[in-house]
Amino acid sequence: MRKPVITLLTDFGTEDHYVASMKGVILSINPQCTLIDITHQVSPHDIQEGAFLLANSYSYFPKKTIHLSVVDPGVGGIRKPILLVTPHHFFIGPDNGLFTLVAQREKVKKVVVLTEQKYFLPKLSTTFHGRDIFAPVAAHLSLGIKPHVFGYEIDSVKKLGFETSVVTEGKLFGKIVYIDTFGNLVSNIDEKIFVRVTKGHPYLIWVGKNKIHGLRKGYWEGKPGVPIALFGSSGYLEISMKKKNAQKALKVKRGDSITIKISL
Amino acid sequence: MRKPVITLLTDFGTEDHYVASMKGVILSINPQCTLIDITHQVSPHDIQEGAFLLANSYSYFPKKTIHLSVVDPGVGGIRKPILLVTPHHFFIGPDNGLFTLVAQREKVKKVVVLTEQKYFLPKLSTTFHGRDIFAPVAAHLSLGIKPHVFGYEIDSVKKLGFETSVVTEGKLFGKIVYIDTFGNLVSNIDEKIFVRVTKGHPYLIWVGKNKIHGLRKGYWEGKPGVPIALFGSSGYLEISMKKKNAQKALKVKRGDSITIKISL
Amino acid sequence: MRKPVITLLTDFGTEDHYVASMKGVILSINPQCTLIDITHQVSPHDIQEGAFLLANSYSYFPKKTIHLSVVDPGVGGIRKPILLVTPHHFFIGPDNGLFTLVAQREKVKKVVVLTEQKYFLPKLSTTFHGRDIFAPVAAHLSLGIKPHVFGYEIDSVKKLGFETSVVTEGKLFGKIVYIDTFGNLVSNIDEKIFVRVTKGHPYLIWVGKNKIHGLRKGYWEGKPGVPIALFGSSGYLEISMKKKNAQKALKVKRGDSITIKISL
Repeated sequence: MRKPVITLLTDFGTEDHYVASMKGVILSINPQCTLIDITHQVSPHDIQEGAFLLANSYSYFPKKTIHLSVVDPGVGGIRKPILLVTPHHFFIGPDNGLFTLVAQREKVKKVVVLTEQKYFLPKLSTTFHGRDIFAPVAAHLSLGIKPHVFGYEIDSVKKLGFETSVVTEGKLFGKIVYIDTFGNLVSNIDEKIFVRVTKGHPYLIWVGKNKIHGLRKGYWEGKPGVPIALFGSSGYLEISMKKKNAQKALKVKRGDSITIKISL
Repeated sequence: MRKPVITLLTDFGTEDHYVASMKGVILSINPQCTLIDITHQVSPHDIQEGAFLLANSYSYFPKKTIHLSVVDPGVGGIRKPILLVTPHHFFIGPDNGLFTLVAQREKVKKVVVLTEQKYFLPKLSTTFHGRDIFAPVAAHLSLGIKPHVFGYEIDSVKKLGFETSVVTEGKLFGKIVYIDTFGNLVSNIDEKIFVRVTKGHPYLIWVGKNKIHGLRKGYWEGKPGVPIALFGSSGYLEISMKKKNAQKALKVKRGDSITIKISL
Repeated sequence: MRKPVITLLTDFGTEDHYVASMKGVILSINPQCTLIDITHQVSPHDIQEGAFLLANSYSYFPKKTIHLSVVDPGVGGIRKPILLVTPHHFFIGPDNGLFTLVAQREKVKKVVVLTEQKYFLPKLSTTFHGRDIFAPVAAHLSLGIKPHVFGYEIDSVKKLGFETSVVTEGKLFGKIVYIDTFGNLVSNIDEKIFVRVTKGHPYLIWVGKNKIHGLRKGYWEGKPGVPIALFGSSGYLEISMKKKNAQKALKVKRGDSITIKISL
């Protein structure tokens, strides 16, 4: 039998004992799991950032992987604890928009609200459902318990607005939606729309007061201190700088605009 | 057979190769182990913080888990390397107070000073017993070697003083003993003593110059910028702030006082 | 059969989804792997630091461990993706000097340039060979595919210059080559050369304007605020400070000189 894989994505950080407690709970129920951290450094309470990181990594995992995702500022409140089933993966976490992008990309086969307390820890806190609800449900699911057993079905997951790129005459407007460890500025402009809008015409890329000509293939291109544009590994237009941190050099922040001006 | 679990808790950080060397040593002796990090970001040399993080996580792990814990400013000095056996778990590390809280909560079945060099790395450094003594002993223990084989028995582990809450007439005095990634201020006041002292009478909670009325259930409650009090997932009174970092907002630090004033 | 171990060392950090994507790719190909992080906090693009951390940890891992090492500022450019085979280990990554120290210490049995695309991800990016080339090759290698199958052989790996210590009359000159989480200053002076040069004569150790007499055995020795010298767990001369961060106290940085003056 294939070893079940459970990934963990949280905003808990790695300094506290929180993530370890979740892993201990999982291994106590199913010691055969392989546990993989996606990241625990989502900015505190930043559901959109968590959604972005999950959306860019889940598809690389084996079929039947269980993605345990907890960015949960409303823990203990009215948001629902859910299990989302797609054709190849399972997602467990709070229904607060964290699964927006996954639900846009994948067929939603089933959404189950977790109510069956016998799959929770016996003593339930109001502050740490990652440990008390989500971790034990993930572990029981990895043992082969069927999704519908954990609660009742609903139609869909909660969606958060994620800004998409906008096309007007001669212009493609996007936003910087993520900035990575290297300082690369990741936009929400994907390659398909870029090609469709530019259609081989000349164009300029504007980020803040910086003008960039053309596209490159790799981060090693360009000159130190001069920003370049390229399509990154997730398929989105990125601004980068050779052996430098573009974010620091250009003083761009998440949410800032990026504009493609096309010469028609 | 159940796969053995070994947890690791250190102040080594995750930037250096130290933790990896320990894991390599373990897997060279027992490749079947599941290795789980509790944290490696204990503040350097902070034995009390390490003791707190270990005490709040070990009990969530499966029975027979081996907890390898190394916050060891006296490495190579006179402090003893030990193996502590409790009814459900094993703890390996320096006898410098790191196991104080575990030994308070669990029955101490056996404490063994690690002297049997054939279970150490052949070349023993004076600066890295985590790699040279504790990791190989943990790995051998996970293979089924009996605790008494690793050395000689002593009666108890070294205890460090951990301040407990104090009750005087109409007041319950505590301390902030831990501050987590979210900035939540965790005190040493547990729910039992709180209930016993307040007995249903009205009370006020004071932290620095901040006055808090009553208890909440979840971090999502209250208003932004206003501190709230609640019992956290480890069972202690915490001060928190909705979607804010209470530590930064209130400028409270570890060791500061928290006082409950009861209207009798 | 022994479970294959794959280690990962990168400069990707732990905040992004990059490392997780690599792990997902590996587990999709070989779900039986044990994945161990060496570190992902190599300073961005710092090949020499990556080489140092790898060189100080790889030998502690089981025979046949696959070390996946990606510090790769030239990704997508002309540097070659390689597999290095030594008597006991495999190393996979860019041929940019990252394996300099390993190749100095171990017999190089084989170096294979990775060209066989059927062992890569089907869709190859120009920006993330860690995920698209190195991870899937490591996973296939762990399944027992022979090294020569992945591409064509070359004679040697690219070497970067690493400064070694220099002996002149009555003096041994070294450099600080690494500074660890605790602020310990690790030099490139190993114990053999130190013993050979000092030959039992009295000596003084100079770091910046600080003069240190003699050697200690452990970090716990000396007085707070006074630097001490000792041979660390990797066998190199280190400068440390009792329960303090020597780097911060002495304001020394990587590349600074350390000099041993011998009284002949």
